Amino acid sequence: MAEKKNFTPVSDLGEFGLIDHLTKDIQPTQKTNIKGVGDDAAVFACVSDRVGLLASDILVEGIHFDLSYSPLKHLGYKSVVVNVSDIYAMNGVPERITVAIAASSRFPVEAFDEIYEGIKLACSQYSVDLVGGDISASHKGLIISIAAYGTAAKDKVVMRSTAKEGDLICLSGDLGAAYLGLQILEREKRIFMENPGVQPDLEKYPYLIERQLKPEARKDIPAFFEKLDFLPTAMIDVSDGLASDLLHICHQSGLGAEIRENDIFIRQEAQMMALEFQLDPVTCALSGGEDYELLFTIDPGDQEKLAYMTDISVIGEMKNKKDGVKLRTMKDNLHDVTAQGWKHY
Amino acid sequence: MAEKKNFTPVSDLGEFGLIDHLTKDIQPTQKTNIKGVGDDAAVFACVSDRVGLLASDILVEGIHFDLSYSPLKHLGYKSVVVNVSDIYAMNGVPERITVAIAASSRFPVEAFDEIYEGIKLACSQYSVDLVGGDISASHKGLIISIAAYGTAAKDKVVMRSTAKEGDLICLSGDLGAAYLGLQILEREKRIFMENPGVQPDLEKYPYLIERQLKPEARKDIPAFFEKLDFLPTAMIDVSDGLASDLLHICHQSGLGAEIRENDIFIRQEAQMMALEFQLDPVTCALSGGEDYELLFTIDPGDQEKLAYMTDISVIGEMKNKKDGVKLRTMKDNLHDVTAQGWKHY
Repeated sequence: MAEKKNFTPVSDLGEFGLIDHLTKDIQPTQKTNIKGVGDDAAVFACVSDRVGLLASDILVEGIHFDLSYSPLKHLGYKSVVVNVSDIYAMNGVPERITVAIAASSRFPVEAFDEIYEGIKLACSQYSVDLVGGDISASHKGLIISIAAYGTAAKDKVVMRSTAKEGDLICLSGDLGAAYLGLQILEREKRIFMENPGVQPDLEKYPYLIERQLKPEARKDIPAFFEKLDFLPTAMIDVSDGLASDLLHICHQSGLGAEIRENDIFIRQEAQMMALEFQLDPVTCALSGGEDYELLFTIDPGDQEKLAYMTDISVIGEMKNKKDGVKLRTMKDNLHDVTAQGWKHY
Repeated sequence: MAEKKNFTPVSDLGEFGLIDHLTKDIQPTQKTNIKGVGDDAAVFACVSDRVGLLASDILVEGIHFDLSYSPLKHLGYKSVVVNVSDIYAMNGVPERITVAIAASSRFPVEAFDEIYEGIKLACSQYSVDLVGGDISASHKGLIISIAAYGTAAKDKVVMRSTAKEGDLICLSGDLGAAYLGLQILEREKRIFMENPGVQPDLEKYPYLIERQLKPEARKDIPAFFEKLDFLPTAMIDVSDGLASDLLHICHQSGLGAEIRENDIFIRQEAQMMALEFQLDPVTCALSGGEDYELLFTIDPGDQEKLAYMTDISVIGEMKNKKDGVKLRTMKDNLHDVTAQGWKHY
């Protein structure tokens, strides 16, 4: 909402009018779609050689995002990404989402337009249909709750609980950038609050800022598995930080693990920024969260297939439960990996 | 939370500990279940002669409920009911839900326990599995967002858009009671606020209070259609009030309608209470909302089958679009039906 304009209060349209306004141009694209927006529930065909997948997440203003630096369009985009990421983490394909939004009266129709612009862009990027939802007032703040439905081939769903001892631990992309992007945004906000004349300097760190405000989900990874005709033995998306998400795989598979600090890919700008904040880059990677990369385990016999995937790091190995979950440092010490993920409370 | 006890702050358990605590005893019951709570997404089998159904709703403290008179257990129960009602309104069977909750730090672990007790009771009552979700902090208040997945036989889904001119308009149960229950609760709250010594007198109106605080969804109606081997031509659940929901069927079917005031079933205690509040009982039925009854249209040739269903009223007839949507009063006047439903804004 950069330019000045007159804002339309939601009460001018009412709940149904607003939903019509926001969804009138939506054209479902899924072949299985029977009825999208506009009935009590969305309707779609079931395909018997596939399984259904269902996930939901809630994003709360002041907890998951700060509107003083999160553009509403990016926020809408990100709210879809965090949900489709859960479907990819099952080796599935997201097909449709419902969106429930509660917003106080400080959000005019134009704010919903921006949120929905981001939601629709993400729907297009990830080939999912927006098929329904709900809009409500709230007394305070903005809450976006999305449910995602997807499918996977019946024999190709990958859970967290099926890793085997000796499996290699693999990680897509790089970690820590989203967390450091958040640190920059928080710092620039503090500076701006103290000196409103100083303009935030965000252009120096485009990658870190984008990883925080407009992350992407790894839809290419399940596609690669399909193309290379192999399956990971277990998988999870890295939403709470590598440590927390690795612990989920270990606990649910009844195993231990050892990962090597040296093999966790942290991009140079994230390394530099961590130093600037006097943070340990590896701690940012382990506990920062919101990277939306995929963490998966593979049979060692499949390692050669990884060569065809461009940004996968092998970071360690699944161990016996009695070995615990350890990080081997660059100095060859072993530390316990502990969950630090997001603490809302 | 009647008795005094020590409350456990959510921070003692953390987000994952709280989710484990709340979901550890959940046993999925659906035959199609493959994986319930505990992975990135729930996994379930698809059955090819059925279609999938997906709906979601969000309930916001201070907008949809007031915790000064809504017990948390009832609130949990109702939050499931409003969602499964949407699945029944498609002539479907709800199978599984995800639950996303955001709550401020004033809600201890014991508050979540009560909400989940209600959610689990409703899951048992409606034979649905709780298969996942999300828990977050909020800066203020309680928000519950539920997504429901269900299925229906491929050729038996009933939409809003398929009513035909001349179809009979049918309504299950009675209307207006939930709205009048709300008026009583609001009145007793005002009295209590002004005179804290006066205990609220709610026992005189058990039906009205229960319709507001712990409504039920009409799972018996799709079962009846199945048993009697016939289908309504269109259907919707009465969540926003008869007027608003009838208008949805009319608009989406491209038709008009005429309903008869005299045939709308309003129970005697609701009639009496409306008089006490100097409200028109029919207005409470038309615009009160939250009744969670089913409004459906049938081919006139199917009318005899209604005799087997115990509480269905035939309240009018679908007309040509040019006839508009009208209410015929007891004095034989025709009034336009206008949407008044819930106005959050």
